[in-house]
Amino acid sequence: MRVAVFRKAHFNAAHRVHNPNWSADKNADTFGKCNNPHYHGHNYELIVKVVGEVDPETGYVIDLGILKKIIEDKVEERFDHKNLNLDTEEFKDTIPSTENFAVVIYDLLRAELDEKYDIQIRLYETPRNFVEYPVSI
Amino acid sequence: MRVAVFRKAHFNAAHRVHNPNWSADKNADTFGKCNNPHYHGHNYELIVKVVGEVDPETGYVIDLGILKKIIEDKVEERFDHKNLNLDTEEFKDTIPSTENFAVVIYDLLRAELDEKYDIQIRLYETPRNFVEYPVSI
Amino acid sequence: MRVAVFRKAHFNAAHRVHNPNWSADKNADTFGKCNNPHYHGHNYELIVKVVGEVDPETGYVIDLGILKKIIEDKVEERFDHKNLNLDTEEFKDTIPSTENFAVVIYDLLRAELDEKYDIQIRLYETPRNFVEYPVSI
Amino acid sequence: MRVAVFRKAHFNAAHRVHNPNWSADKNADTFGKCNNPHYHGHNYELIVKVVGEVDPETGYVIDLGILKKIIEDKVEERFDHKNLNLDTEEFKDTIPSTENFAVVIYDLLRAELDEKYDIQIRLYETPRNFVEYPVSI
Amino acid sequence: MRVAVFRKAHFNAAHRVHNPNWSADKNADTFGKCNNPHYHGHNYELIVKVVGEVDPETGYVIDLGILKKIIEDKVEERFDHKNLNLDTEEFKDTIPSTENFAVVIYDLLRAELDEKYDIQIRLYETPRNFVEYPVSI
Amino acid sequence: MRVAVFRKAHFNAAHRVHNPNWSADKNADTFGKCNNPHYHGHNYELIVKVVGEVDPETGYVIDLGILKKIIEDKVEERFDHKNLNLDTEEFKDTIPSTENFAVVIYDLLRAELDEKYDIQIRLYETPRNFVEYPVSI
Repeated sequence: MRVAVFRKAHFNAAHRVHNPNWSADKNADTFGKCNNPHYHGHNYELIVKVVGEVDPETGYVIDLGILKKIIEDKVEERFDHKNLNLDTEEFKDTIPSTENFAVVIYDLLRAELDEKYDIQIRLYETPRNFVEYPVSI
Repeated sequence: MRVAVFRKAHFNAAHRVHNPNWSADKNADTFGKCNNPHYHGHNYELIVKVVGEVDPETGYVIDLGILKKIIEDKVEERFDHKNLNLDTEEFKDTIPSTENFAVVIYDLLRAELDEKYDIQIRLYETPRNFVEYPVSI
Repeated sequence: MRVAVFRKAHFNAAHRVHNPNWSADKNADTFGKCNNPHYHGHNYELIVKVVGEVDPETGYVIDLGILKKIIEDKVEERFDHKNLNLDTEEFKDTIPSTENFAVVIYDLLRAELDEKYDIQIRLYETPRNFVEYPVSI
Repeated sequence: MRVAVFRKAHFNAAHRVHNPNWSADKNADTFGKCNNPHYHGHNYELIVKVVGEVDPETGYVIDLGILKKIIEDKVEERFDHKNLNLDTEEFKDTIPSTENFAVVIYDLLRAELDEKYDIQIRLYETPRNFVEYPVSI
Repeated sequence: MRVAVFRKAHFNAAHRVHNPNWSADKNADTFGKCNNPHYHGHNYELIVKVVGEVDPETGYVIDLGILKKIIEDKVEERFDHKNLNLDTEEFKDTIPSTENFAVVIYDLLRAELDEKYDIQIRLYETPRNFVEYPVSI
Repeated sequence: MRVAVFRKAHFNAAHRVHNPNWSADKNADTFGKCNNPHYHGHNYELIVKVVGEVDPETGYVIDLGILKKIIEDKVEERFDHKNLNLDTEEFKDTIPSTENFAVVIYDLLRAELDEKYDIQIRLYETPRNFVEYPVSI
């Protein structure tokens, strides 16, 4: 009996969408105000989906208290109140778009969770703009 | 032309996450404050997804007024303002985790809906903790 | 590396759920107060999902500013503050149920977006009643 | 010991913002797309605030089940799935703006509730546009 | 320059609305399903409003991190995952209605906050039923 | 007949809570991670309340389309996708706390709106932390 469980978290960060291989003009044309050199920021909302068998001893797919702790240690601790471009290893050579950010978070959590679980990340940059990775599980 | 339609409902209940085959200590260690012997409770939010062909005569997959009534009669009537552990047949021998609760609700609704429909349940225990069953349809 | 991106929009409209091939009585019996001859209305919430490869130059699946503009031009401009039954071509011979409305919006957006993208529409008629089309991508 | 209690309800309706004493042009200039002659519509959210003494026998300012029933009978029954301009007495000679609608609902509820209570209405036409009446209590 | 700052928190609990001085029948008639002897429960949402002068050195009325900690220590710690009737001193002789609960929380927080601040509590029992105390500040 | 009308807007920005007259240590001790020298950011939600007489010719206190335009021109244009500390005049010598930000926005809007209106600002830094200014109107 496989069930999907979800845990929601939130944190906030500053970033700048910028391709260092491009001219200032091309960056401004492509990314508009998201390219502001002094950064802007967001309250990110993160939903982590974990799919697995229900343990008949506990009724749980995974203890959500443990999942909450993993998200705090591996995601919130790393990104909360940070400048994604300047303060993090992950976006040294990667554009901190929501798409790339979701993949980075997926990889961080994938490394912590037993391979018996399938996982999926949904990341809200704003209530109107959000992404999901991987596409289907 | 298959379309998915969704209907949202809500109700509240008390419960205790507890495995009667375990010692008090093991229950407390595993389930923490969710194991409080005097129960705690939640406002549950339920989303029922029904997938089927659109009827060209009505433009409907299913009359949402009928679906609303089925949810009221089979889910809300049974669980609203109840103690899941003490007041319901379904959790006499089953731990009332959100995972198990979603499966119970799925079975109750599956029995009422024509087999031409595929259905899926999403159940929110809190705005931050929720589950989905079955995993994909 | 395929990622799904989502953009949320909203608009409002009046409509009447009515089958012109049926008697007044059959319409009233089937559609209830949704059949009110003087119309009623909704604040529609629309979520457009676009699935594709992340462009390594931009970090984007699609520029959400461009997607926002397409939704404004093709959906909001056409339906916002309109009477679906009287003011639109699309519902001249089609019942403006949420199911049919989602398919209409899907077709309008599908025609504007590069075929390399998969798309899916979620349309909220109310916070409690909503639909998704196509069923899975 | 005075406490304020709140009850939230919702319904939907069609309307047209139109001043019959004005020319078509002046109406169109002033009210824009809200003046569409074929109507448009909204999901209205209503919050009713009732202020009074807590009854020591019940712990209640007012039984919210009774308040819910009054709102259903006097507001939802009258306006849900209606065309405000065509189907209601209240807007025969009054423009159905959100401001006027809130005052109408206030008067309907004020007539049903004991004068020992102070009441206030908040009415959402959309999640972004809403009104409150009276201004302070 | 006086400004109001707000901090939102949440917790969940079980309770039973019951007057021990009344017969079982009168309790059932008055409180309906809220009187279920086996309890039911809620996800409570709490908003604490603190009004005071902005400190020109910090730009703060009060450090919201400190306010968050006070709410955790004095409210969440005491009520989260508890049975209000059985597990708390405060509702030994007081009916745990939302009205009374808001007053109890107000008193707990009032005792912790400098008297230079005015405070107000808003407590959601469900998204549709909530209270505010004191009535105006 | 005075009514309050509300308009909601949103934008996002980066900022750093920092007092330039203090040592780095005192700043870090007082403001914690909000003092990150590389900035962090938020999706701000703004609610503008305008109180006035209902115009019997229009049914409006104020045309919300005009209010929306004023908020766009005077607030969103100035602060959206900006670094409050580096990109704005207003926070050259003022700490960009939510309290100070609300007062700045109030002053900008107050200058644009007829003095017959009373106005109040509610500003959400996150869904859990928000402020209101002035305190009561």
